[in-house]
Amino acid sequence: MKFLHTSDWHLGRQLHNFSLIDDQQYVLQQIIDLAVEHRVDAVVVAGDIYDRSIPPANAVKLLDDVIHELIEVHHIPVIMIAGNHDGHERLGFASRQLKQSGLHIVGPLVANISAITIKGKHTDAVFYGVPYADPATVRDVFDCDARTHEEAMAVLLEQVIQSDAKGLPKVVVSHCFIAGGESSDSERPLSIGGADHVSAELFKPFNYVALGHLHGPQFKGYPHIRYSGSILKYSFSEQHQNKSVTLVTLDQKGIATTELLPLHAQRDVRIIEGLLSDLLEVGVSDTHRDDYLMVRLLDKTAILDAMGKLRSVYPNVMHVERTGLLAQTDTLELNRDHLAKSEFAMFRDFFEQVNGESLSPQQTELLQQTIEEIHHAEDRS
Amino acid sequence: MKFLHTSDWHLGRQLHNFSLIDDQQYVLQQIIDLAVEHRVDAVVVAGDIYDRSIPPANAVKLLDDVIHELIEVHHIPVIMIAGNHDGHERLGFASRQLKQSGLHIVGPLVANISAITIKGKHTDAVFYGVPYADPATVRDVFDCDARTHEEAMAVLLEQVIQSDAKGLPKVVVSHCFIAGGESSDSERPLSIGGADHVSAELFKPFNYVALGHLHGPQFKGYPHIRYSGSILKYSFSEQHQNKSVTLVTLDQKGIATTELLPLHAQRDVRIIEGLLSDLLEVGVSDTHRDDYLMVRLLDKTAILDAMGKLRSVYPNVMHVERTGLLAQTDTLELNRDHLAKSEFAMFRDFFEQVNGESLSPQQTELLQQTIEEIHHAEDRS
Repeated sequence: MKFLHTSDWHLGRQLHNFSLIDDQQYVLQQIIDLAVEHRVDAVVVAGDIYDRSIPPANAVKLLDDVIHELIEVHHIPVIMIAGNHDGHERLGFASRQLKQSGLHIVGPLVANISAITIKGKHTDAVFYGVPYADPATVRDVFDCDARTHEEAMAVLLEQVIQSDAKGLPKVVVSHCFIAGGESSDSERPLSIGGADHVSAELFKPFNYVALGHLHGPQFKGYPHIRYSGSILKYSFSEQHQNKSVTLVTLDQKGIATTELLPLHAQRDVRIIEGLLSDLLEVGVSDTHRDDYLMVRLLDKTAILDAMGKLRSVYPNVMHVERTGLLAQTDTLELNRDHLAKSEFAMFRDFFEQVNGESLSPQQTELLQQTIEEIHHAEDRS
Repeated sequence: MKFLHTSDWHLGRQLHNFSLIDDQQYVLQQIIDLAVEHRVDAVVVAGDIYDRSIPPANAVKLLDDVIHELIEVHHIPVIMIAGNHDGHERLGFASRQLKQSGLHIVGPLVANISAITIKGKHTDAVFYGVPYADPATVRDVFDCDARTHEEAMAVLLEQVIQSDAKGLPKVVVSHCFIAGGESSDSERPLSIGGADHVSAELFKPFNYVALGHLHGPQFKGYPHIRYSGSILKYSFSEQHQNKSVTLVTLDQKGIATTELLPLHAQRDVRIIEGLLSDLLEVGVSDTHRDDYLMVRLLDKTAILDAMGKLRSVYPNVMHVERTGLLAQTDTLELNRDHLAKSEFAMFRDFFEQVNGESLSPQQTELLQQTIEEIHHAEDRS
């Protein structure tokens, strides 16, 4: 049994208001080619298929084309689950009718987590799609009292443990944040205040765990519990990550081995730094000058239309930081710190500065609840 | 060959900001029951499945449930096309994978209008789904120079005429405005300035034509060229319409006969008129007082919180018109006239009142183009 594990496609995403749809198409074609080349028995996408619950029409079309290519042209089944960015109902439309075509979409969480048996060229395996679900949803669907993400996941995985796989290896597909995982700026927190993590131990009993959510490829706790990472760099904090899909092989005993197959972006996402005149000079001979760039200008003087000048050489400059100008004060560090902070921390700092005292425990709890409700409402809209 | 012809479900629609999703579910259950009772070979939905290109999640879920019931539980194939309200790409997602399940969705227009063969208990038939498409789209897809809806439809139907149905009856499913058709207030015009109509003659060669767009059931030109009408009254202008689905039977020779099967709304949409005190008095014994109501008050005096008083008896009053109060001036007629006018007419009147002169032919053309572009952009969004 061989399959590709990928996740966090985020179709329809923009980077600093630039549409990435062409870049997404470019790299998804590589995934199709890799699936064919390695003669895999399935392609698994572990959530965040789309970037938001209502994706733009061209993202829907792109997914439609990729699905068609994999399933209709190459007869490779596809398993995908909803992540925290996806609209579960929308993604799951007609999934009961799609199964027989080989397209297995797990949209909204249901009480009976279905076993998806995939026939391999050598051995078979059973896949369990566990869509992203917050504790409130798990309580609702399973009539239990799970309060944390950890407890909720335990309830879900208990279903998988109880399921009779008839001796076949069990692969869990899930979208969550495993404690200790390394995040990037482009992931939306699942919860406020750190209660969003689940421990890797929960996933230990399975033959392989195909995870989505974190954008850097990594394993947590055990080598068979893996994040494939996103298909593209979705923030400048990912500039040094190497994106890939994970080729997973389950042997006759159900033991998983993995290999990272690199993905090559049409345009890289990177940060360049220097004096304007130097950057313009070296840019002319930079064969990758159409990469998506953040530029840190070290010049200490005012520059008229720095963006315009830079784009005359680097067409896809997305953001200019006047590092040199701001280095003279503490402002830069302050701003960048703030941007990296969560809504919670931003509000807490604001509260402290205005009131001269910290949030009380009750206020802290109320604020966390409010922010969670807002995120929840956004997800449902 | 027996099939149900329905259209204009407009799932997710609101009436004066009231969600109709429960009412839609109520009446769709009747369609499922009728399909089973009459042992039909297919259910055909001729466009405007959703009310807008981005439907709310509960509308997606409702459609998912209805589809599941028809296809999975009762094994009745479903054919649906995109209307002018639908988002063609969204509706058409994974349609190539869905075909084998018996769900045939025709989303965006493609150059090869596919023949959908449905096996009947006695005879078979071939269905051609022609989604709503404006002349610009038809020009684009077919590389032709169709300028009007009439010319565009002729191009599309020529494809159907050329298609080899191997001697089986041909049924065309289309969403358009046939010249002379009777409209309601709840249909969105397909075009500005009257160029949106097509002649019934174009459809004469086919065995049956299942149309969508007009919300009142009717036939145009020939009895086999029919609008099924919407499943609910979507405006007060439809208060006297009887909603139904059309049961179509094609005999051995391919000759169509039709029967209207009535649909019963959970709550009617109607207008009541009278003095407030009279209405409140009769309302108490009105067993249908939870209907969706427009109330025309004949009182000639000011009334404090008329809506609140009315809703204490009639919970679903949606709109109150102070007919009595306004009858003393011409204002009412003016207002209601205005509401019934298209954006074009409204702007033209505004222009004339402000400038004291009419639009020139050039200005008229520019205005029509602009309004069409706005509608077009809305449809694509």
